[in-house]
Amino acid sequence: MAASPPAIEVVADPAVLRAAVLAARADGRRVGFVPTMGALHAGHLALVARAAAECDLVAASIFVNPTQFGPGEDFERYPRPVVADLEALAGAGVRWVFAPPVAAIYPPGHATRIVVDGPAVGFEGAVRPGHFSGVATVVCRLLLAVPADAAYFGAKDWQQTLVVKRMVCDLGLPVEVVVCPTVREPDGLALSSRNAYLSAADRRRAVALQESLALAAEMWLTEAPLAVIEAAMRDRLEAGGVAVDYAAIVAADSLESVTAGSAAVALVAGRLGSTRLIDNRLLPPRGEAGR
Amino acid sequence: MAASPPAIEVVADPAVLRAAVLAARADGRRVGFVPTMGALHAGHLALVARAAAECDLVAASIFVNPTQFGPGEDFERYPRPVVADLEALAGAGVRWVFAPPVAAIYPPGHATRIVVDGPAVGFEGAVRPGHFSGVATVVCRLLLAVPADAAYFGAKDWQQTLVVKRMVCDLGLPVEVVVCPTVREPDGLALSSRNAYLSAADRRRAVALQESLALAAEMWLTEAPLAVIEAAMRDRLEAGGVAVDYAAIVAADSLESVTAGSAAVALVAGRLGSTRLIDNRLLPPRGEAGR
Repeated sequence: MAASPPAIEVVADPAVLRAAVLAARADGRRVGFVPTMGALHAGHLALVARAAAECDLVAASIFVNPTQFGPGEDFERYPRPVVADLEALAGAGVRWVFAPPVAAIYPPGHATRIVVDGPAVGFEGAVRPGHFSGVATVVCRLLLAVPADAAYFGAKDWQQTLVVKRMVCDLGLPVEVVVCPTVREPDGLALSSRNAYLSAADRRRAVALQESLALAAEMWLTEAPLAVIEAAMRDRLEAGGVAVDYAAIVAADSLESVTAGSAAVALVAGRLGSTRLIDNRLLPPRGEAGR
Repeated sequence: MAASPPAIEVVADPAVLRAAVLAARADGRRVGFVPTMGALHAGHLALVARAAAECDLVAASIFVNPTQFGPGEDFERYPRPVVADLEALAGAGVRWVFAPPVAAIYPPGHATRIVVDGPAVGFEGAVRPGHFSGVATVVCRLLLAVPADAAYFGAKDWQQTLVVKRMVCDLGLPVEVVVCPTVREPDGLALSSRNAYLSAADRRRAVALQESLALAAEMWLTEAPLAVIEAAMRDRLEAGGVAVDYAAIVAADSLESVTAGSAAVALVAGRLGSTRLIDNRLLPPRGEAGR
């Protein structure tokens, strides 16, 4: 009979986890890392499954990062179902859960932040000032506490994946960034911890994001001008009751204007009631890039 | 006869140096790192000597970091005596010299900077906007390329040492920051690569910085009010022909107001001709902190 695998270990001290991860790697194990804010859903668990498939050991973090929430955003009410999260991670075969206190990530007197321009400008960066600086800072801190071979991020937060990749490249953080496909409900709604905020009526309306993106993909193939597609995306969102923050098609790797032959991404964001939702869909390169 | 030690190795590729340093550490060697902008003088070599005394292997970097120079500062004319620098480092027993091209530190499309508040506010931070962001960003990048046990910095740039320590703590960079005493000319002038810019007359006047600090230390012992000491420091600098940027006594660890019983530092900065000089002197805690 094979020995049981070691139980999941919850670690609060970054130095302890760092030492454990480095020891495992020195022992020849490949380590994957899935940073999360908890309130785990099947999207997070798909990241864990991918990490487990590609690595010998998986670390996940649960840290609701205060600096990536703006004033008036949902930091206080962000769901924190800790016991269920730990059970889900244990069931998924995670070896270490990094669950630091705020003071371990932001020590007394902390005064350092990482600012990314480039892909962090516009879209979420415009709607949520300071958000990506909070993301970049905490991801750098987490990657130093969990010096894994690879870190796994969901494509649902497409702009975030670009910001993280930019920072990792620029600072030379020694980790591979792996972006995994968005996991969706049967009606196409992208999984998000914030979906739990939606009223039943808004939950039905939320399919408008997916419909707007499907419409964009269909029109994209017809070589319709970008401005026409974007207007149609916005119309579809507004018809569904979404207060639109943006609906745009931009270059997938830079979020700048689409050029002929570049892969593109359709980005949508808006509010249903007091809940803010975002989604995106990658589009293949096409010959006609004009607006 | 003992085998010759391996020759000094000049490395341009961060990934190559990172691998070499990690391999040495995995082999049980302690590695020290001395980041420099080249134009080496006895102050830099004192850092190397300290690193060599405390570590098995020493890496040094030579990189004139464009982002820590402001518009109109001396980036272009900053001295770059590369051959003499390499000879000096080889003579001092350095194992690796990291001499990256700019694109290895700031890759194409780079868009990430590290911003430190706290100790970076005021003094050099006020006179040179953006300077400490450039310092913090490059030091983080260098520390990731050269993952040493300890990194060595000179106390002459006192505020810089606080900024680096703050960033290292806040991001959890796994390195010990060692601050080494300022090395001085016989007349007390702190060694600086910028001293080479001074005319003969300004070189004689430059002793005013050291005299101002000596005066501060003497008055500090008399329990004179801070404002009186600071005015005397400024007078002494101006009498020596220095265009004063600041002359201040502040808490040594935060650069905030001195409180009773806290160690203090006297900071001076100013210009002689087109050359900017800074210096400082630590002062012991005293009972009377009032201005």
